[in-house]
Amino acid sequence: MHLPPVFEPPSRLLMGPGPSMVAPSVYTALARPTLGHLDPEFVRMMEEVKLMLRAVFRTANPMTFPVSGTGSAGMEFCFANLIEPGDEVVVGVNGVFGTRMVDVAERCGAKVTRVDAPWGRIVEASAVRDALAKVSKPKLVAIVHAETSTGALTPVEEISRLAHDAGALFVLDTVTSLGGCPVEVDAWGVDAIYSGTQKCLSCPPGLSPVSFGPRALEVAAKRRTKVQSWYLDVNLLSSYWGQERVYHHTAPINMNYALHEALRVVLLEGLEARFERHRQSHLALKAGLAELGISIASQEGHQLWQLNAVGVPEGLDEAAARRRLLAEFGIEVGAGLGPLKGKIIRVGLMGETARPENIARFLAAFRACLGRG
Amino acid sequence: MHLPPVFEPPSRLLMGPGPSMVAPSVYTALARPTLGHLDPEFVRMMEEVKLMLRAVFRTANPMTFPVSGTGSAGMEFCFANLIEPGDEVVVGVNGVFGTRMVDVAERCGAKVTRVDAPWGRIVEASAVRDALAKVSKPKLVAIVHAETSTGALTPVEEISRLAHDAGALFVLDTVTSLGGCPVEVDAWGVDAIYSGTQKCLSCPPGLSPVSFGPRALEVAAKRRTKVQSWYLDVNLLSSYWGQERVYHHTAPINMNYALHEALRVVLLEGLEARFERHRQSHLALKAGLAELGISIASQEGHQLWQLNAVGVPEGLDEAAARRRLLAEFGIEVGAGLGPLKGKIIRVGLMGETARPENIARFLAAFRACLGRG
Repeated sequence: MHLPPVFEPPSRLLMGPGPSMVAPSVYTALARPTLGHLDPEFVRMMEEVKLMLRAVFRTANPMTFPVSGTGSAGMEFCFANLIEPGDEVVVGVNGVFGTRMVDVAERCGAKVTRVDAPWGRIVEASAVRDALAKVSKPKLVAIVHAETSTGALTPVEEISRLAHDAGALFVLDTVTSLGGCPVEVDAWGVDAIYSGTQKCLSCPPGLSPVSFGPRALEVAAKRRTKVQSWYLDVNLLSSYWGQERVYHHTAPINMNYALHEALRVVLLEGLEARFERHRQSHLALKAGLAELGISIASQEGHQLWQLNAVGVPEGLDEAAARRRLLAEFGIEVGAGLGPLKGKIIRVGLMGETARPENIARFLAAFRACLGRG
Repeated sequence: MHLPPVFEPPSRLLMGPGPSMVAPSVYTALARPTLGHLDPEFVRMMEEVKLMLRAVFRTANPMTFPVSGTGSAGMEFCFANLIEPGDEVVVGVNGVFGTRMVDVAERCGAKVTRVDAPWGRIVEASAVRDALAKVSKPKLVAIVHAETSTGALTPVEEISRLAHDAGALFVLDTVTSLGGCPVEVDAWGVDAIYSGTQKCLSCPPGLSPVSFGPRALEVAAKRRTKVQSWYLDVNLLSSYWGQERVYHHTAPINMNYALHEALRVVLLEGLEARFERHRQSHLALKAGLAELGISIASQEGHQLWQLNAVGVPEGLDEAAARRRLLAEFGIEVGAGLGPLKGKIIRVGLMGETARPENIARFLAAFRACLGRG
């Protein structure tokens, strides 16, 4: 075959739904020499990753670690371990990722009750209450905290209480929220949670941070059936990531180096300062767009800071605008999905991307695309 | 929390069962700037990865791509897509990875017939024939080509014929063989195959190259039930990795850069030259060990070049020897597993590791551990 040349990626400002910009020190960490996954030095680093993940998730859960796959593997990890065939589960659906949860849960044999909300709006606690009233024995309630496909942030504390009152576990998707806005595993009583590395943690994609609390671990330990996935079986993974270090799979060594450094960057900045930076970035973008007569399309009062559903102005060919942003200005933004296709452009302000200079660069380029350059 | 310092891995010569040494250009590729996974330039690079993987697997299968997980995820990918509850499968078991196949297949609902062979020996085609004679309607026959836990290389051409004669698919684990010794997907009639990046491809761990032939794809397309894993569903993944580029998950971007470069390195050397280098490395190690009165414990005539089961001489505390190799000489080797624990030390000569200077360094250090320095 004709051998391709070395791949040299072009320069991009990543302002889409993820991946986000990566800090230079994270790239440096990624390229450090590979160790064996049982090397005492790698094991020591894994312990530090676990400790830092607990700090970022704000949890004391010992079973807090990165699944060796991307965010969707983290979703599957939660459902595959907690659901047994025939279990009843309640899933909030207000975008792509709630829809995906339903699919994943059904593949685990669950009987799913959907709580649908219009895309762009939150899942209301009252709707979850109504759904739970119709389910005889709910095993879990699952919600997407920050819907990357729509830019809505669902408040989850009351939903968590409702789940527990019904005797169910509370499962939360924080792929896009973790590191960008408050996520409180212990204070909110979240039993199982997953995230991704490539959003507000500003690490390349490839790992999915997860945490299981004591109730979730108990459910997994007391299963009547084996977890259908060997790769994601929490009972096997706790021996690997726990004190015993029983060989399971070969962890992605260099990706774990990168996550270690990305978590250091997050904690050096401080979570509160980081959240405030994301909030200010969102407000700056919103103000700049308002000057152009453009608004954020997701529900007022529940708009995500880190993912902005920018309404497409009448007459704009948004696909052409996105192509021009990429080709001429080197800026990646995201398309709308499903019912929002063509109606919004998704502008991510995640992690390293959420900085004034990037917002200014985007606004100038977008102004040009609107013919107001 | 007390923030840990930057992680600086110590210098190691990786001569265990994987990961192996990584070429400098692969580290450089790994640290290149992250692109979005739908970026036209990333998509173009993915196409090159697919083409190079086909060359390395020696197949024309269009469905040849890296699963976004480690080798065990590749194993699960094959079984989860091809098995439906109640299916009868035949699995060769002569080490850890055959044992794992049985577990994974059973979690997919398979009725498994094991073909056991002593650890360190190959799975005989005649034993597979006998097993197939007792199974009414076998869905697939699965074999580990190179057993990383024992150092035995099972010849598979006849087993592939037997599988097809029985109307079954032939599934092959080439985690440790790919890139180190001949693997012929099309010539051998392999229907589904998986590997890992961190063995003879000398890329860090994190991806699992796989290939599905037309018969396997047909079986997956005609399933009565949905694939139990959403993350590994080949029907969804073919839309993502195929021409349609339908969003599925976010591929591990930088790991794919690394695999792209690692495949370039493999193909620049040439497969035949690379195999010969592995063969010569094995012979050099074997000769050096013979001078010390030590032999390779796996079956004569079927010894793996890239993973050497070094017999532990009488009186040697092998765990202490491995610790000393690591601490004093910076050399990682592997322990024996299962029935071979304490009886062998596993010395990997994979990819970049398989070079005369590394073998000399190991032999000198091992000689010291034996008190013959």
